[in-house]
Amino acid sequence: MKIKTNTRSTHKEEHLKSSDFITDMVIGMSDGLTVPFALAAGLSGAVQSNSVVITAGIAEIVAGSIAMGLGGYLAGKTEQEHFQSELKREYDEVENIPEKEKEEVRLIFAEYGINGLSQNIIADELAKDKNLWVDFMMKYELGLEKPDANRARNSAATIGLSYIIGGLIPLTAYFFTRTPINGLMISAVLTVICLFVFGYFKSKVTGQPPLKGALKVTLTGVVAAAAAFLIAKTFNNIL
Amino acid sequence: MKIKTNTRSTHKEEHLKSSDFITDMVIGMSDGLTVPFALAAGLSGAVQSNSVVITAGIAEIVAGSIAMGLGGYLAGKTEQEHFQSELKREYDEVENIPEKEKEEVRLIFAEYGINGLSQNIIADELAKDKNLWVDFMMKYELGLEKPDANRARNSAATIGLSYIIGGLIPLTAYFFTRTPINGLMISAVLTVICLFVFGYFKSKVTGQPPLKGALKVTLTGVVAAAAAFLIAKTFNNIL
Repeated sequence: MKIKTNTRSTHKEEHLKSSDFITDMVIGMSDGLTVPFALAAGLSGAVQSNSVVITAGIAEIVAGSIAMGLGGYLAGKTEQEHFQSELKREYDEVENIPEKEKEEVRLIFAEYGINGLSQNIIADELAKDKNLWVDFMMKYELGLEKPDANRARNSAATIGLSYIIGGLIPLTAYFFTRTPINGLMISAVLTVICLFVFGYFKSKVTGQPPLKGALKVTLTGVVAAAAAFLIAKTFNNIL
Repeated sequence: MKIKTNTRSTHKEEHLKSSDFITDMVIGMSDGLTVPFALAAGLSGAVQSNSVVITAGIAEIVAGSIAMGLGGYLAGKTEQEHFQSELKREYDEVENIPEKEKEEVRLIFAEYGINGLSQNIIADELAKDKNLWVDFMMKYELGLEKPDANRARNSAATIGLSYIIGGLIPLTAYFFTRTPINGLMISAVLTVICLFVFGYFKSKVTGQPPLKGALKVTLTGVVAAAAAFLIAKTFNNIL
């Protein structure tokens, strides 16, 4: 449920391109741990039966994993279509209004104090190869990189599945206890440990300070669960 | 719960910088409509009491909005710290190993077929102003743009609050009906209309084809709700 931070291009991550799978897994799992855990905690203060907590938890896991997986997949498709339409537009512009495109190249470099003569040299050099020129405009004018079709699909599947696995962890406690409050106590211990461990790995794979990252992920889960518990309990007393 | 697509720098969005608030609102609201709607739908097939559906829905809204809001805020802070540490590193490199940094500039342009002479001109020009040189390396070597501190906080708050408002829409139906199945029918009609409308606006503000975008958002919500309903019902029969 978090907004994915821009992890595209840091020094460290250059070395981690092969671990996209691990990054997706950790993102899905740490989100899966947070929301189903907090939902189950919230219900534990409001209902008397473990089976209601489990049913609600399962429904949340299904809903969340599909929203994240299918939603992410469809967003990835949109991004691909967007890239293709911008690519077509840049090819058209390079073909039909090359002088305007050259002026755009010069403006990019003017911003960095490059003098007029050098700006012209760059623009003329770039214009020699239309494919490379369009690549340049896509990346440096529009900030767009070619999305990988398989990556979008695999990423959505990995995040969705990891959300399911992450979400089942806090729920297991309710299978083996008699009351929701007992379930919550075991669930909380189990989930806080997992949130910390996954927050640690999540920070590692996204190139952030791991201990601080682990504390942030754990804090988010604990605050969400405590708030859900208090508000659901209050609300249930009113209803 | 979706992965935010890269909407940073398309032609259209250049004109929409002032509507960050609207973008965040629509993102939070369309996500808020999806998961609480699907959770409530899932529970409607499994429990007999509207108050259980409402309590679970409220707990989910609290959990989801905090995970999205607080999680997004903390991720924004991490991004700022990351930017600052990379900025410091680039200043160090420009100061201590300028020849290596110049080589990096040349490599960026070599990729686009710019000849050696022009590469040298660009590298030498850039090196004249260290601040602009560092700005250039941050953006074009690392793909990092200075995160706005207020933007991260405001964005998190807007997304979190919109998630709450979006999540309350599908739940209202359960307040005014007697059984969860009746609630679900009204909730589904109401939510599908809202998903379509918000999907339409979401696509508009992120510069995508609006009708197609509206259908994608609606489809995600309907699939999530249908799956949650079927699986929660099956699970509840087993428990």
